[in-house]
Amino acid sequence: MKTFRRKQVVKRLRILIALATVPLFLAACGNLSSSNMSSGSGSSKTGSTQLTGQSTDGDYEGVIKSGHYQTSKSRGVTNSQDSGNTYNLKSFESGMLNVSKKVFSTKKYVFQEGQYLSSSTVQNWLDRQSKSNDTGLNPKDNGSKSPDKRNPVYIQALEEQDYMTQKNNKLSLSGVTVGIAVNSVDYYKKEQYGATYETKISKAAGLAYAKKAANTVLQRMRQKSALKNVPIVIAIYRQASNDSLVGGTFMAYSQNKAGATTVKDWTALGQKNVVFPVESGQSAPNSNDASSFTNFKSQVENFFPNLSGVTAQAQYDGNTLQGMHVNINTQFYSQTEIISFTQYLQTAAQKYLPTGVPIDVKVSSTDGVQSYLSRASGEKKFASHVFNSY
Amino acid sequence: MKTFRRKQVVKRLRILIALATVPLFLAACGNLSSSNMSSGSGSSKTGSTQLTGQSTDGDYEGVIKSGHYQTSKSRGVTNSQDSGNTYNLKSFESGMLNVSKKVFSTKKYVFQEGQYLSSSTVQNWLDRQSKSNDTGLNPKDNGSKSPDKRNPVYIQALEEQDYMTQKNNKLSLSGVTVGIAVNSVDYYKKEQYGATYETKISKAAGLAYAKKAANTVLQRMRQKSALKNVPIVIAIYRQASNDSLVGGTFMAYSQNKAGATTVKDWTALGQKNVVFPVESGQSAPNSNDASSFTNFKSQVENFFPNLSGVTAQAQYDGNTLQGMHVNINTQFYSQTEIISFTQYLQTAAQKYLPTGVPIDVKVSSTDGVQSYLSRASGEKKFASHVFNSY
Repeated sequence: MKTFRRKQVVKRLRILIALATVPLFLAACGNLSSSNMSSGSGSSKTGSTQLTGQSTDGDYEGVIKSGHYQTSKSRGVTNSQDSGNTYNLKSFESGMLNVSKKVFSTKKYVFQEGQYLSSSTVQNWLDRQSKSNDTGLNPKDNGSKSPDKRNPVYIQALEEQDYMTQKNNKLSLSGVTVGIAVNSVDYYKKEQYGATYETKISKAAGLAYAKKAANTVLQRMRQKSALKNVPIVIAIYRQASNDSLVGGTFMAYSQNKAGATTVKDWTALGQKNVVFPVESGQSAPNSNDASSFTNFKSQVENFFPNLSGVTAQAQYDGNTLQGMHVNINTQFYSQTEIISFTQYLQTAAQKYLPTGVPIDVKVSSTDGVQSYLSRASGEKKFASHVFNSY
Repeated sequence: MKTFRRKQVVKRLRILIALATVPLFLAACGNLSSSNMSSGSGSSKTGSTQLTGQSTDGDYEGVIKSGHYQTSKSRGVTNSQDSGNTYNLKSFESGMLNVSKKVFSTKKYVFQEGQYLSSSTVQNWLDRQSKSNDTGLNPKDNGSKSPDKRNPVYIQALEEQDYMTQKNNKLSLSGVTVGIAVNSVDYYKKEQYGATYETKISKAAGLAYAKKAANTVLQRMRQKSALKNVPIVIAIYRQASNDSLVGGTFMAYSQNKAGATTVKDWTALGQKNVVFPVESGQSAPNSNDASSFTNFKSQVENFFPNLSGVTAQAQYDGNTLQGMHVNINTQFYSQTEIISFTQYLQTAAQKYLPTGVPIDVKVSSTDGVQSYLSRASGEKKFASHVFNSY
């Protein structure tokens, strides 16, 4: 079933991994600092390599080969996780980048989509272990359909990210991060097209299972000659359930030195995601943030006669707020109303929302995004943009 | 039919014109420069007046009364135009702001949504003249259903914008702009729920009709005591047809001095909207812009294995480009792909797109907007933002 669903998704996303080989006039994009390099010792066969350019110091540059973005070798496979909760997908990938930044500095390393684990490899790993698939990282099907007796699918997604360094005008692999996403709830069907049932997986059980799998993954990766001698970071992510209004979080990561074949130790991560306004009976790690948000929300909701919702996703590290994504849904408004509203939000956000962390505010209507504001962690004022058309 | 449709729209948009009277703690938003004023000679009954704050010098600040945005008295009515081509709506309103900026400086004037023409007044004006509605600005129904013999509905929308100045801590009306939107195509039905037919209205015929109507509108406005002695700008807009990928344009405007009851002269506007890539057989006012866009498009389309569309709306004044809204539609991509793509766009947009005019680039997938870039006219680099979630 799982396999069936995953394959459908893969098909739907059309993995066009093979990069077209049409050579392009690359010098055309030469405005980038350090962005034109030959790939390897003068080999013009593979075409030249470029970098995407860096928007801010906090972002990695990406790799372009022969004018095409170097897409992941297992592109689409890890996207299987978007079946239920679309937040998980963005959260898993950008969370992997954040974990990687702890180890691979954005000043020194260049980001490349995973090139070493192929689509079929990752698919087999994500499947259950079976006679036909002895590399499956998920447990054998024990035949039970009972939520508590069956073996759940623990590992829902696995993704590779490569970190390159530049030397003598050549990019070489200098680090790899592998993300392993474990389910908090395994959704399954007893019969095709039937009702969906759930097996809950505790945080502890998921983490323990993923740690064991991480060891296996590390050993297998070391068997590839290109990966034998690079540092490999493995990060474990816990997926949010399908009804969650925010994605999952990373629970732990391990740094494995070049050549290491067993994971020695894990660094625990105290990430927690919260949705504001906090549901009754629940609480935010920091009550000041919750009341800041409530003040903001009530100010903003009074602006128009009708405003359908002000919510936010907040991420914490322990009790410390890391950032906030605010979403405002409006009924239809005129362009002048959106302009005025956005100006007002600029003041209200600065006045009420927590300081010192990155925050963005997105204003959407049924016609899509109307305007948006953002402030980086070090800034005081929110920058804003109102979407317009001619 | 027209009336029926318009009324439905009005209903759908729920005109909640009456402002709630709950007084709010306004000092809470006092961070604005010049943003707290009492409205009038110490009258605390009506509550205090605030401004929204100004994002840039090029934008007007808006008026907030008692914590609520001062919405238009005819809110929703002019929205009837969104029935067919949603671009018209934004284009009409932001175009009115642009025409107003020629007359009422954003440094001196504050924007207020129209407060003098009520919803029912505007509705009657937009209807056909008839026994029950002698104020209708559209011609009588002559009974014909033939596209060429019937009297078309010329005027599709009418909107008022107020421009205030501040003196002794008090805002007072110092100018009004009225936009009159004429159809290029009048869509009508011969029977309810029947097929839609079209009466085409030439640019010249639409302009002539609107100029006559403008005179009537000016006279009627002067009958209101508050509008007797303020400058009134009347601007004539030509709606794009429903199948257009860009909105309409303003054809002309007139500046009428305080007290003037007839429109003396009109200033023609050479606005033209173009969609890039230009359709075969058509041409852009400036072929350099067209080839710039084509270069940009082909560079960008090579980035990913599949990219569904790169288009742009461009606005010209005569042969001079005024700005561009670029839209890129992607298939689903992963978050890291969107980050890299946006970095790449930052370079490619700077390299290929025309300089010296405001440009923004919006990247959307079926999940909505993924990232966006923008550059003001005086800037060299594009600022970018990738939408993310936790």
